[in-house]
Amino acid sequence: MLNIEQMKWWGWGGENIEFNMDEKPELWPYIKNVLGIEEEVKFTPPVKLEYIELPPQTLNNDFVTTIKSFIDAERFKLDKKERLIHSYGKSLRDLWRIRNGIVNASPDCVIYPLSEDEITRIIKAALDLNVVIIPFGAGSNIAGCLEANNGGNRMIISLDMKLMDKVISVDKQSNTARIQAGALGPLMEKQLNALGVTLGHFPDSFEYSTIGGWIATRSAGMQSDKYGKIEDMVLSLRMVTPNGTIVTRTVPKSSNGIDVNHICIGSEGTLGVITEAVVSVHKLPEYRVPYGYLFPDFESGVKAVYECVENYTSPVVTRLNDVGKTALSLAYRSKSSPIKSFLGKVVKSYLKNFKKFDLNKVCLMLVVFEGDKVTFKNMKKRVDKIYKNHGAFNLGTDPGKAFEKGKYDFPYLRDYVMDRNIMADVSETATVWSNLLPLYYSTMEAVDKAIKEKVKTGFVGCHISHTYHTGASLYFTFGFQQVTGYELEQYLTIKKAAEDAFIKGGATLSHHHAVGFEHIPWIKDDISETGIKAVRGLKNALDPNNIMNPDKIVPSLDKPLDWGLQITDFENVSK
Amino acid sequence: MLNIEQMKWWGWGGENIEFNMDEKPELWPYIKNVLGIEEEVKFTPPVKLEYIELPPQTLNNDFVTTIKSFIDAERFKLDKKERLIHSYGKSLRDLWRIRNGIVNASPDCVIYPLSEDEITRIIKAALDLNVVIIPFGAGSNIAGCLEANNGGNRMIISLDMKLMDKVISVDKQSNTARIQAGALGPLMEKQLNALGVTLGHFPDSFEYSTIGGWIATRSAGMQSDKYGKIEDMVLSLRMVTPNGTIVTRTVPKSSNGIDVNHICIGSEGTLGVITEAVVSVHKLPEYRVPYGYLFPDFESGVKAVYECVENYTSPVVTRLNDVGKTALSLAYRSKSSPIKSFLGKVVKSYLKNFKKFDLNKVCLMLVVFEGDKVTFKNMKKRVDKIYKNHGAFNLGTDPGKAFEKGKYDFPYLRDYVMDRNIMADVSETATVWSNLLPLYYSTMEAVDKAIKEKVKTGFVGCHISHTYHTGASLYFTFGFQQVTGYELEQYLTIKKAAEDAFIKGGATLSHHHAVGFEHIPWIKDDISETGIKAVRGLKNALDPNNIMNPDKIVPSLDKPLDWGLQITDFENVSK
Repeated sequence: MLNIEQMKWWGWGGENIEFNMDEKPELWPYIKNVLGIEEEVKFTPPVKLEYIELPPQTLNNDFVTTIKSFIDAERFKLDKKERLIHSYGKSLRDLWRIRNGIVNASPDCVIYPLSEDEITRIIKAALDLNVVIIPFGAGSNIAGCLEANNGGNRMIISLDMKLMDKVISVDKQSNTARIQAGALGPLMEKQLNALGVTLGHFPDSFEYSTIGGWIATRSAGMQSDKYGKIEDMVLSLRMVTPNGTIVTRTVPKSSNGIDVNHICIGSEGTLGVITEAVVSVHKLPEYRVPYGYLFPDFESGVKAVYECVENYTSPVVTRLNDVGKTALSLAYRSKSSPIKSFLGKVVKSYLKNFKKFDLNKVCLMLVVFEGDKVTFKNMKKRVDKIYKNHGAFNLGTDPGKAFEKGKYDFPYLRDYVMDRNIMADVSETATVWSNLLPLYYSTMEAVDKAIKEKVKTGFVGCHISHTYHTGASLYFTFGFQQVTGYELEQYLTIKKAAEDAFIKGGATLSHHHAVGFEHIPWIKDDISETGIKAVRGLKNALDPNNIMNPDKIVPSLDKPLDWGLQITDFENVSK
Repeated sequence: MLNIEQMKWWGWGGENIEFNMDEKPELWPYIKNVLGIEEEVKFTPPVKLEYIELPPQTLNNDFVTTIKSFIDAERFKLDKKERLIHSYGKSLRDLWRIRNGIVNASPDCVIYPLSEDEITRIIKAALDLNVVIIPFGAGSNIAGCLEANNGGNRMIISLDMKLMDKVISVDKQSNTARIQAGALGPLMEKQLNALGVTLGHFPDSFEYSTIGGWIATRSAGMQSDKYGKIEDMVLSLRMVTPNGTIVTRTVPKSSNGIDVNHICIGSEGTLGVITEAVVSVHKLPEYRVPYGYLFPDFESGVKAVYECVENYTSPVVTRLNDVGKTALSLAYRSKSSPIKSFLGKVVKSYLKNFKKFDLNKVCLMLVVFEGDKVTFKNMKKRVDKIYKNHGAFNLGTDPGKAFEKGKYDFPYLRDYVMDRNIMADVSETATVWSNLLPLYYSTMEAVDKAIKEKVKTGFVGCHISHTYHTGASLYFTFGFQQVTGYELEQYLTIKKAAEDAFIKGGATLSHHHAVGFEHIPWIKDDISETGIKAVRGLKNALDPNNIMNPDKIVPSLDKPLDWGLQITDFENVSK
C-alpha cells in the first residue's frame, strides 16, 4: 500500500527524514540547555513492533463474509501490522502509548475502498450488522480523531481512503478541482501542478494527510492568509452516511438554508465518509519569493503583522516566531543552511549598536510574497515599508529559503526527542487582535507554571502563522523532560494548562487541529451546551446507530464531558 | 414603533420614495414598449387596509396571560393592523395577495422583545403552551420566510426584533462589532459610522432589513466582492432555541468540530431566534469613487470581470447589466440625473463609428473603487486597463454616482407597475465561471419561453453583482402583463422556469434570497435528500415540538416537497 510503508509506524512520518545531529550542531545543546538537562540522556527507542500486543480481534463473521464478496483480500486486511498502523493518529498521547507498546484499542480490520460505491456498500453492511467504521486519511491527526472506540463490543473497521487519490477533474476556467478524498498532499499537488494550478493548502502535516482529512478536521495550511482555511475552499462535496449520501452543488456561494457543506466540514468522520470534494484552486503564481526579517521584539512583530492586515496587504505566508521559537529555529538550522552565518559577528554588532536591538529579544519573521510581477512588487514594497517602520531588519531571502526547504521536517523533531525521554507537543488557538498579546502572555505564563509544577524546567514558545482581518492564530510549542511513571499525567497537566488558558482567555480550543476526543474537555465551553445538542442532532439524523467514529467532537451521552483528560481509560498507561 | 409605520404595508417600502413619472420620462414608455402594452393601462390600486379580512384570531389564554406578566401592552400587540403588517414578507406572491386583500394566514399577535432574556421567557412560554413563533426582522424577505404556518391550530406570534437595534460595542483594534439582531441597516450603519467603521453589507433591502435577518437568510450585499457575504462576516452569535441558547466564541477561525455558527446562519428562524452577533467591520475607506463603463456586449463585460478576478483585482462593487437591464437602467434614470446626456448624439456617434459598438448590444457596468490612496490608484489603474482591453468605454463617475444615489429605489418600481396590472419579480443564482454564460443563455431562454406561453410578451434581463474566485451570481429580473384570474399561475409558471433552469443548469436555487417556503420545490435537488435529513435532525434536536417558524427551508414530513409551487393552499387566490 502506498506511502504507509514509508511511515515510521510509531512516529510522525517517513524514513525519508534523516535526523543527523552532526548536521544540526546547535540543536541538541540548545534543547538540553533550555530543558535544563545536565545529566547524560538515556536513549529509549520505541518498543519494537513484534513485541506489541493488540487487544483481542473482534470479528463479525457475517460482516467479514459480506465484505469479502466485493473487496479482494489485498484491500481487506486483518493482520496485526495493519491493525497497529491504524490504531492511532500522531498525537503526543498516541506516540507515547505506541512507543511504550500500549495499545488497548485497535481496529479489528482495515478496508481500502476504491470507489464511493464500495464505501456505500461497506457502510450499509456495517449498519446492517452493527459494525463501527473509523475513516482514515493518512493518520497524522493529533487530536485523537482516530481513537478506536467501539461504543460497545462491536467490530471496528478502519476505512483507509488512500486508494481514492485522484484529482478527478480540473476546471481551469472556474479555478476548481474535483478531488477524491484520499488524495495525499504531495500526490494531489503533483496532479494539480501538472495542470498549472495549486490548491494552496500546505499544513505542517502535508506529506501525511489527505484532502478528505483536511475537510473533516477544518485544517489550515501555511498559505491560509491568501487562500483561506480548507472550509473556505470547498464548493461542494459528497459524504456517504448510514442514512444516505449528502451531495451538494458546485457553486461559489448559496443561500439554500443551513449550509450543508458546513454540516460535513469538521464532522471528523462522525457522520459519514467524505468521498470527494470540489475545491477552489489557483493558477501557479508567476513569482514566489520567501524573505526573512528580524524584529526587535515579539510585540513590534505583532504590530507590523497587524498593520499589514489593516492595510489589506498581507503576504501569502506570514510566520512570526516569538523569542523562544526564534532561538529554536536558529538552533534547528543545518550546517549547510544558507542562513548559517546570517547572525554572524558583523550583523550582531550592527543590530546591537546601530539598530539598538536587544539580542535576547529579537524575533524571526518568515514571509512569502507571490503573484504576478505588479502584485508581487507592490506587495513587497508596501510590506517592507511597514516592517521597517516597526524596526525590522531585512535578512533577505536566505532564511525564507531555508524555511521553505525544511518546512515539513519540524514535526520529526518530536520523534528524535522522544527517543531521549523528552516530550514535546503543540497547542494552538485563534483570537481577535485586541486579545492576541494578552492571550499570548497568559498562555505562556500558564504553560510555564504547569511545566514548573511538574518538572524543573522546560521550553515554551509560540508563533503566529495565520492572520485574519479580525485576529490571528497563536501556535504554542512546549517541551520538557519526562518523569518515568508520570509521563501522561505530566503531559495532560501541561496540555490542560494551555487549553484552559485559551478558553479562559476567550479563545477557541483549536484553530486547525480538530477536536477528536482529546479536546472534548473544552468543547462545551467552546460551542455551548446547546451547540453540543445541535451536533448530536445531526448524529441522530445521519447515524442513529452510532456506527461512525463514535465519541468524537462531542461524546455520546454515556461518556463524561472531561473524557479527553481521563487517563483512567488507559489502564495500562502508567508502567 | 420605529420604521414600520413608514412602510407602505402593501409594498416594499417607504413613503419616502416618490414615483413621479414626470421625473423619469423614458421609463413608462420603455416598460409599455418592452411588455408589448398597446392599450390604455387600467389603474388598479391595492385593496384598502380596512377592507381586508384577517383569518380568525387564535388566542391561547394561558400564553397571553404569561406574556402580559412581563411584556407591557405597548410591546404586545393583538390588533388587526399589527397582525396584517406581519402577515407577509415582500415576495411577489406576498404583494399580490395582500394587494388583493387575500390574507388566509396571519400571526395572531406581535411581540416586540427588548432583550435576550425576554426572548428566552417568550420561547419558554411558547414551548410550554404549544404556541408558534415566527421571528420578524423588517419584513422584506422575498422567499416566503414569514408565511404564517401554525402546523396545526396553534396560536402564532410574530416576534418583531426591531427594538433590539443597538450596536452594543465596537472593538476597533479587532475590526469587530457586537450588534443586536434587530438593528435595521441604516440605523446600524449610522451607529457604526459614528465610530469610524462600516459593516460593508448593503443588500438592495438595506433600508428594510436587519442584521439578524441577513444572518438568518445568508444575505449578500452590494460590496460582497470585498467584504464577503454575511456568513463570511460572522465571528460569533447567540441564538435562543426551545432547547437552550447557542453561544459561540468570538474568534476569527476555529477547528472545533462542525461549525456551530453555520448551524445558525441560514436557519431562517426554524431553529431559534438569533439575538446578537459579533461581525467583522472595516474602517471607512479614505477614497470611494463609483465609475461607469460601457461594454460592446455582455460577453465582453463578463470576460473583463473574469480577468479582474483572475488577477485578484476586483473593485469593491461590480455590477454588469446585460442588454435588457442596461436599457431598463437607462430608461429608469431621472430628468435631473447627471447621466441624462451621457448617451447623447456625439457619444453615440463616437461609439458606433470609432469603437464599432452595436448600440443594440451595449452593456452598462457600474463599479466602485475604494481604499487608501495607493490601493485606490493601483486598483483603478489595473481595472481600467483590463476593461479597455475588452473594449470598454469609460463613462466617468456620473453613472456610478447616479446608481449610488438611487441604489435602494429600484424595488419600488414593482409597486408602481403592480398598480398598473404588471407583475415584475426577480430570481437569482450563482454558478462557476465556466458555466456562467451557458446558464445565462439557458435561463434567459427558459424564462422567455415561459413568458411567451403565458402572455404575449414580457421583459427578462440580468445582471451580475457578486463575483468570486470560482464564479459569480446571475440576477434575473422579469416582468409581464397580468391576465386577470390567472395571475399566480402566470407568475409561478415563469418563476418555476427560472428556478428549473438554475437547477437543471447545475446552479443553486438562490445566491442570497433564502429558501423560505417559496423555494422548497428545489431544495431536494439543491442539498440532496440526505441534506434535508440533516437539517431535520437539527430541527429535532433544537425544536422538537416544531414551534419555530414551521415548514421553512425544508418542509415538515407531512408537507409535500413541491409545496412552494402549490397554489391550492391559497383557496381564495383566484378571484
